Amino acid sequence: MYPRSAPIGDSIMTDLNHLYLFTCELAKAAGELIQAKAKEPRTLHKKGFRDIVTDADFAAQKLITTKIQEKYPHHGFLPEEKDHMLPSSGEWIWIIDPVDGTSNYSRGIPNYCVSIAAAKQVGSSLDVHVGAVYDPIHDELFSAQKGKPAVCNERTLRRSPVDEISESVFTLDWSRSPENRAKTLQILNHMVHETRTIRAIGTAALAICWIADGRVDSYINYDISPWDNAAAQLILHEAGGRVSNFANKDWHWQQRDCLASNGRFHEAICAHLLRATT
Amino acid sequence: MYPRSAPIGDSIMTDLNHLYLFTCELAKAAGELIQAKAKEPRTLHKKGFRDIVTDADFAAQKLITTKIQEKYPHHGFLPEEKDHMLPSSGEWIWIIDPVDGTSNYSRGIPNYCVSIAAAKQVGSSLDVHVGAVYDPIHDELFSAQKGKPAVCNERTLRRSPVDEISESVFTLDWSRSPENRAKTLQILNHMVHETRTIRAIGTAALAICWIADGRVDSYINYDISPWDNAAAQLILHEAGGRVSNFANKDWHWQQRDCLASNGRFHEAICAHLLRATT
Repeated sequence: MYPRSAPIGDSIMTDLNHLYLFTCELAKAAGELIQAKAKEPRTLHKKGFRDIVTDADFAAQKLITTKIQEKYPHHGFLPEEKDHMLPSSGEWIWIIDPVDGTSNYSRGIPNYCVSIAAAKQVGSSLDVHVGAVYDPIHDELFSAQKGKPAVCNERTLRRSPVDEISESVFTLDWSRSPENRAKTLQILNHMVHETRTIRAIGTAALAICWIADGRVDSYINYDISPWDNAAAQLILHEAGGRVSNFANKDWHWQQRDCLASNGRFHEAICAHLLRATT
Repeated sequence: MYPRSAPIGDSIMTDLNHLYLFTCELAKAAGELIQAKAKEPRTLHKKGFRDIVTDADFAAQKLITTKIQEKYPHHGFLPEEKDHMLPSSGEWIWIIDPVDGTSNYSRGIPNYCVSIAAAKQVGSSLDVHVGAVYDPIHDELFSAQKGKPAVCNERTLRRSPVDEISESVFTLDWSRSPENRAKTLQILNHMVHETRTIRAIGTAALAICWIADGRVDSYINYDISPWDNAAAQLILHEAGGRVSNFANKDWHWQQRDCLASNGRFHEAICAHLLRATT
């Protein structure tokens, strides 16, 4: 009654669908792990200036990478926590932040998440096909598969209708280095008078997903890492928003400056950023 | 077997205890109301520049004031939403913010709360005896009775051990007026280089309760209203922290500038604020 094998196009679709569902399950499992650990005393290490990591970050990353290696033994990794046992190249690269918002997590501030993206390596670029961001406190799984609508749990994400900077909720994160903080201040000194209000929630992935869900309207970060925004940028893109660098160039995994918005006044913000920094 | 009436001291204690439990129940009931309404479409009114109010704010305040008037018909009110039907004076004054963080609430940002304080009128001062701040999303009821330990649900609140500004998480809210935003920027331009990191969550009451719970370490606001911090300042005080104006004068309901901290480096922050603004 059924063909013994699906046509090639369908098979690729099914594989990508499996990859998507697997990524979603993985983000949820890692989120449940960090949430279970949130009640226990934390072991905390300084890994750099104003930068910390907890035992929960390591445990969640281990869970994620172990399960990926069991299922996809030839894939590569780009995880936040360095792990020399993991291959860094492969047809597919997994971009992983086991806890985005570690400072919040370590202090009990209820804004943090797990971020996992699966990307195809295309030359020096990473083409993200699947992204999942799980906020375990609010049980919200933001996810997207390239070319399909982004969702939160089963609800389709819709960016806000806000199309004027003066009515917008602007969000940002503070870099760690004094130089980047000074640059962020330059922008803030300008934007604070242009926007309705400003939030700094301490997690890039969640802030960008919140733009996709219409809760806030824009986000800037002077010094972002790929694991902070690889999944969220796909989710926002599929919800109709935009992620670029400050000069409005399309998202690239190596970019450090990140501007995300609902896409309704993206160029106008770029113009403000240029004015604020020159 | 029992005395027909308790000694006078005990009776006052019992009355205050009743007032405390009543305030806690009221904050919870109002929080449940706004949470139930959060799923419905909101009716939104502009009440001033960068200032909004929703139908949920009015409904929650009505619930609170109606229940207070049923129980304590001779008490006065100082609510966020003006209501000329309510008496403004009495031996006891109820200071009410039905939704602290209305902008967050109206956009689905999961940081908002109900704040209720009961204060005795003493000359031109209000002596807060009871405070309750309820965060309905996280089901966290922060509360305190004057002279007793502050709690979150049934857990005793403990401020953080952080005693250096460089290790502290500094929080702030943006005022609405351009003048106060400019002054807040002056402070931020200074503090951003002194602190570990900065958060702006958009609700004064919750930020101050978070200091009481050791999640963050300090908070500033250039233009606060009594309903924003009357309950939270008592909660923080009873958890060992401190709320003052920028010049380190004890909290007064009419102060507009507000500095709250875990109390371990309060004077040092005052010195920074003075340096930043002169």
